[in-house]
Amino acid sequence: MRISKFAIPEIIFGRGSIVHLASCAKRLGGRRVLLVSDQGLVGAGWVDRIMEILRDNGLEWVYYDAVNSNPRDYQVHDGAEIYVRERADVIIAVGGGSPMDAAKGIATIVGNGGRISDYEGANRIMRPLPPMIFLPTTAGSGSDISQFCIITDVARQVKMSIISRSLVPNISIIDPLVLLTKSEELIIASAIDAFAHAVESYLSLLSSPFTELQALKAIRLIAQNLRPALNDRSIEALENLSIAATAAGMSFSNAGLGIGHSLAHSLGGMFDVLHGLVHPILLPPVMRFNLPAGVDKLAAIGRIVCGPRMCSSEYIALAGIDWLERFFGDFNVPVRLRDILPDSSCLETIAKTAVNDACTLTNPRPASWESLLGVCQEAW
Amino acid sequence: MRISKFAIPEIIFGRGSIVHLASCAKRLGGRRVLLVSDQGLVGAGWVDRIMEILRDNGLEWVYYDAVNSNPRDYQVHDGAEIYVRERADVIIAVGGGSPMDAAKGIATIVGNGGRISDYEGANRIMRPLPPMIFLPTTAGSGSDISQFCIITDVARQVKMSIISRSLVPNISIIDPLVLLTKSEELIIASAIDAFAHAVESYLSLLSSPFTELQALKAIRLIAQNLRPALNDRSIEALENLSIAATAAGMSFSNAGLGIGHSLAHSLGGMFDVLHGLVHPILLPPVMRFNLPAGVDKLAAIGRIVCGPRMCSSEYIALAGIDWLERFFGDFNVPVRLRDILPDSSCLETIAKTAVNDACTLTNPRPASWESLLGVCQEAW
Repeated sequence: MRISKFAIPEIIFGRGSIVHLASCAKRLGGRRVLLVSDQGLVGAGWVDRIMEILRDNGLEWVYYDAVNSNPRDYQVHDGAEIYVRERADVIIAVGGGSPMDAAKGIATIVGNGGRISDYEGANRIMRPLPPMIFLPTTAGSGSDISQFCIITDVARQVKMSIISRSLVPNISIIDPLVLLTKSEELIIASAIDAFAHAVESYLSLLSSPFTELQALKAIRLIAQNLRPALNDRSIEALENLSIAATAAGMSFSNAGLGIGHSLAHSLGGMFDVLHGLVHPILLPPVMRFNLPAGVDKLAAIGRIVCGPRMCSSEYIALAGIDWLERFFGDFNVPVRLRDILPDSSCLETIAKTAVNDACTLTNPRPASWESLLGVCQEAW
Repeated sequence: MRISKFAIPEIIFGRGSIVHLASCAKRLGGRRVLLVSDQGLVGAGWVDRIMEILRDNGLEWVYYDAVNSNPRDYQVHDGAEIYVRERADVIIAVGGGSPMDAAKGIATIVGNGGRISDYEGANRIMRPLPPMIFLPTTAGSGSDISQFCIITDVARQVKMSIISRSLVPNISIIDPLVLLTKSEELIIASAIDAFAHAVESYLSLLSSPFTELQALKAIRLIAQNLRPALNDRSIEALENLSIAATAAGMSFSNAGLGIGHSLAHSLGGMFDVLHGLVHPILLPPVMRFNLPAGVDKLAAIGRIVCGPRMCSSEYIALAGIDWLERFFGDFNVPVRLRDILPDSSCLETIAKTAVNDACTLTNPRPASWESLLGVCQEAW
């Protein structure tokens, strides 16, 4: 076994854990918070609740919510300017992957200066970041756990992957009660994003015993709990989806991902699609592409979703992929690329951008842009 | 599920990972190292190797090795005095649980002043500690991962449990190659200590999905790899014992332990016994005592060590405990308390000290000093 690294934030997990927010901020030396969120959350009342907790504990804050789904480079720079101008000393992000990634970008610029595109790729952040506390409100992005930050370069129409241990927040407070107010579509998209994190990081060239354990746990929990979470909004099922997203975050942050995410980033840079809804389309053909390089691991996934049985590894691996296609199909989400793209003329550009994404490096089977195009054509 | 906390150090794991030591020290701002170890390690050449790495990277160091097995309060204070006098700025500990726990004690005094006994119990450390990097040379103590520090109060003849999130080192570098030079007795004692961490934390009142996963992984790996690690010194088996000790450390650090460790601390305070050799004696009667409060979890352990079978939970739980007694017996270690204590007159004192140990609070079944005495008598 090669040398493996495993770094995660301090995690506070559970129903009602949001009340620990102020004591965490104070423990990190915070007095004046830059609170990053998006406008969708205000309606659900979570931002008010957080402001109330901060106020009751004598903490000041500045609120920044000019963050899109798929956050843009200029939004990061605007946020950093506000942090400095307002003399904030801690960043708290509340929301899905977008405000958390924006917060990571802001922290990077505050601590290191320059333009956010200077840090694209792995290990380019050299100076310390201000303290970060994240409160994820979806069970999927894993940004609350991970070393990854995805920011759209608007001029180049590219989603940049920025990867650094410095991007792991200091503390993540994960309260599954926030999932009770989420739409069905968001729960599905988030859970399938977490599922894709688990599958791709389990197959990754950098997986280790520490990450594999987490990945398999996430796969099992999502396969068992997504349907009950939607049908009855059972808090136990929603909590299990939160545990799964956290475990998948631990896995992909330390093991990396694969070409499914390379293609998703490439697609997301060109078209403003909901990231989690790309995976039901891409993951099955990506798994089939990786079969020659990972039959035993794909068989392990097959045994989790189909149940154990006496058969060849290849048979159960393929049965697992079939099971997944039926599983995704049951949720009434697009399952073909043609359902979300205007026409197939963009596929070559998507494949050529994806081949240079950092996630391609850890894919278990080497992939040229032509093989990525092949995966897209299979998904069309 | 109640609110769970999960905090671990940054981990660098793998054969040869020791070479990352200097870059880690520099990343934490270190220029002048207090290097804490014990005399046993010098012979094996590991301390020389570490000094060479520090020298080659332009780092200065002060060496402190006046640390016993079961480190004493005065050794902590002596070390803290040296740290301050020599203007060190980072602590590196190399060795088993004893030098790592001594280093945690030194860091506590350096950052907070006072006497080490001021911090006995949970969450008494209020001010930040200097940066710590640990290189464990046994696969067992888990001190490289955990929030625990065990120091003997010489005057009171008590092993104090000090528990604080601040005691998690910044970085742990775990290189299984160091196990190649260890004695058979030390490998057994360490592995059984890790096994006891896994079992007790799995049963603990504070266990969570994040810790349970790690505990079961450790139980499986130790049951499968301890014999091969001893028979052929296979590096794969030794590496698996390292992974198990790390996983068990993640589990007990966050879930706590139980009365087996309360009794082991009490015994270790009165008699200078090797901590890991107490568990083969205590763990089976402790598991039987906890059966009424944890039959399903004890059954899960039974299924791991005995293999899955169709039977009642109680039957497989008891079969697992029987399997463990045979497993421990095979390693030619003491399996009765009478083999390591002079006479049974001390048992009442041991039980009365143990009932106040912090580990008793998380035991799944409430335990009075009389029940602890009963466990000791069963183990006699």
